[in-house]
Amino acid sequence: MNIKGFTYSAVAAGIRKKERLDLGLIFSEKPAVAAGVFTKNRVKAAPVLLGMERIGQGRAQAILVNSGVANACTGKNGMQAARTCSGLAAAALGIDENLVQIASTGVIGEQLPVEKVAAALDELVGGLSPTGHEEVARAIMTTDTVPKTAERTCTIGGKEVKLLGMAKGAGMIMPDMATMLCFVMTDADIAADILQHHLLRGVMQSFNRITVDGDTSTNDTVLILANSTAGNPEIIAPDTVESTIFGAALAGLLKDLALQIVADGEGATKTVTIKVINAANEDEAEGAARTIANSSLVKTAFFGEDANWGRIIAALGRSGAVFDQDSVDIAFGDVLLVHGGLAQGAAAEAKATEVLRQKKFTVTVDLKTGQATGEIYTCDLSIDYIKINADYRS
Amino acid sequence: MNIKGFTYSAVAAGIRKKERLDLGLIFSEKPAVAAGVFTKNRVKAAPVLLGMERIGQGRAQAILVNSGVANACTGKNGMQAARTCSGLAAAALGIDENLVQIASTGVIGEQLPVEKVAAALDELVGGLSPTGHEEVARAIMTTDTVPKTAERTCTIGGKEVKLLGMAKGAGMIMPDMATMLCFVMTDADIAADILQHHLLRGVMQSFNRITVDGDTSTNDTVLILANSTAGNPEIIAPDTVESTIFGAALAGLLKDLALQIVADGEGATKTVTIKVINAANEDEAEGAARTIANSSLVKTAFFGEDANWGRIIAALGRSGAVFDQDSVDIAFGDVLLVHGGLAQGAAAEAKATEVLRQKKFTVTVDLKTGQATGEIYTCDLSIDYIKINADYRS
Repeated sequence: MNIKGFTYSAVAAGIRKKERLDLGLIFSEKPAVAAGVFTKNRVKAAPVLLGMERIGQGRAQAILVNSGVANACTGKNGMQAARTCSGLAAAALGIDENLVQIASTGVIGEQLPVEKVAAALDELVGGLSPTGHEEVARAIMTTDTVPKTAERTCTIGGKEVKLLGMAKGAGMIMPDMATMLCFVMTDADIAADILQHHLLRGVMQSFNRITVDGDTSTNDTVLILANSTAGNPEIIAPDTVESTIFGAALAGLLKDLALQIVADGEGATKTVTIKVINAANEDEAEGAARTIANSSLVKTAFFGEDANWGRIIAALGRSGAVFDQDSVDIAFGDVLLVHGGLAQGAAAEAKATEVLRQKKFTVTVDLKTGQATGEIYTCDLSIDYIKINADYRS
Repeated sequence: MNIKGFTYSAVAAGIRKKERLDLGLIFSEKPAVAAGVFTKNRVKAAPVLLGMERIGQGRAQAILVNSGVANACTGKNGMQAARTCSGLAAAALGIDENLVQIASTGVIGEQLPVEKVAAALDELVGGLSPTGHEEVARAIMTTDTVPKTAERTCTIGGKEVKLLGMAKGAGMIMPDMATMLCFVMTDADIAADILQHHLLRGVMQSFNRITVDGDTSTNDTVLILANSTAGNPEIIAPDTVESTIFGAALAGLLKDLALQIVADGEGATKTVTIKVINAANEDEAEGAARTIANSSLVKTAFFGEDANWGRIIAALGRSGAVFDQDSVDIAFGDVLLVHGGLAQGAAAEAKATEVLRQKKFTVTVDLKTGQATGEIYTCDLSIDYIKINADYRS
């Protein structure tokens, strides 16, 4: 999908390894309305600190992103490197430095080689093209096995509005070389605070609901640029029909990218939705789903295709959710394996095992305590996860 | 170590597999003072519910323990099975049924085969011997590769007081077949409430400070029986010199057993102490140490012998502990790898990698925020952990 007014470019700058795309640029011909969501980790990389500082103005015109080095835990030098790179990019593009957003993903604790970024900038800017987004999606990959992009269109005030997104991430959210990054470009005409509102809401329902290994990164960043070239009536309130249509399109795009990340989870062979229903409240529903989704024992049983509901109920029991152990139901797909806290026998287990053999399935846990529901998306924990992460930096 | 007045026996009752010790009995010739600590998991196995009910009386005379079946999530039938087994054991021993404690470890959701326990009881009681504790330690093993026992002696009021403990557990605390169980026998003369006080304090500093995979079990149980045959002046207050001596001996024994569990962690090749110093308070110190110790990425890096401090600082950043990312120090053994939030270079990393090659080492994280310290004991996450848990029930 091309969106009028946006161009993209990626080059191999040799930041950590040679001859792989590792530096990307997203450019909006005019300053765009911008919103961002950043890692909640107390340890924040230099580009995140700079991005948080700049996103407050609600505008941006370019995103410069590198893989290979996270520029995290790099102190004052790292902060200076981020500022220098953004300044160099601004100069090459002929725009205000404060309109440049920076993002990095890669090894923590190594300094960003500014001279390599500087040397590559001419080629990078020269290569800007309306069709280059796929290359940028490749440039931000680390342990990802596939580039991740998604697109949506919606109609607002009679005008077609486009959204184009890209993401990377394979450990969720792995602090070494698999930070989660996501960039979305849209031609919508929308006020900055409403854009921020919809972005945050979308992130809550997508990237904040996936888990590969429970870790979070120093560099996680989600940015959206809206350049208003669609010509729709400007969206200026959160709850109008137009705003809701835009929000739903954005949320759908973010969930699409989030599920691509889970499916590409390090070593993952299966994508699993953990759904907790009839909980006392939403916090308990989501907390219970998250505890189950993060349990190494549950995830390893998924890998082994073992309908080991004992591990699920044990994870549930430490989640803090209120329930009566003699009332709980557990289903794998549409197979009711546990009813009223009791196993439903060998035939049900055999059917549940069939469900587990699929690449994608849902585990539903009915707490019978209230009316709240929570969903978390996860993957299995495989031998390859260990291999990938044990051998990582070498 | 033999302790006067205690006898032990174990047999192969065929509860789940044939020809392996799976039923154990610990017997005190006279009713002993007793204390217990049980799982905090909301889902509790029938033997745990029965044990919690009975421990309130502060006395017990026998512990009947089986492996193979956890008798968890077994409903009313499971509760009835636990009561029936304790009644049968009481009859065979000629004691009050309420003085029998029951413990189980094994697969969740399967009913305990009462008839197999009943059929084995005569042989079990007939085999009681002062030297049989090693056999009981074997009978409670599941994925454990070695039986775990420890002993201590101390002198109280001029009398030698002995403590003998056994434990099982290899996943921490794995809800399938690797529940943590621990039984301690002592000849100390001690009041029930003081025994409970010291047991709880010891458990807090030992079993509650280890982690293999962050999971907790439906069946975790720690029991202590004190039969007063040592002839020491009865310990009746928590803070006397005698009480402190006893508490320290018990705490040391429990820590010894806890570290044996970590060292035998499923697939573990290394035992690692995570020590957080100079935190704002003890909760943050322990919480930070626990978050690091439970991180799959950190544990996999230990397995890969990769001095990947980026994963440690990222886990620290999501732990909730307060610190300044530009002040943190991290040491592997006595090698300072990160100082003031910055890597100390290739030479330090090479030395840190040497530390990681050891079977046992300490990672120290200095938050420089306050004076509190917290320690957690963990192991690495290996390919064998996945193999063990993926193939488990088959």
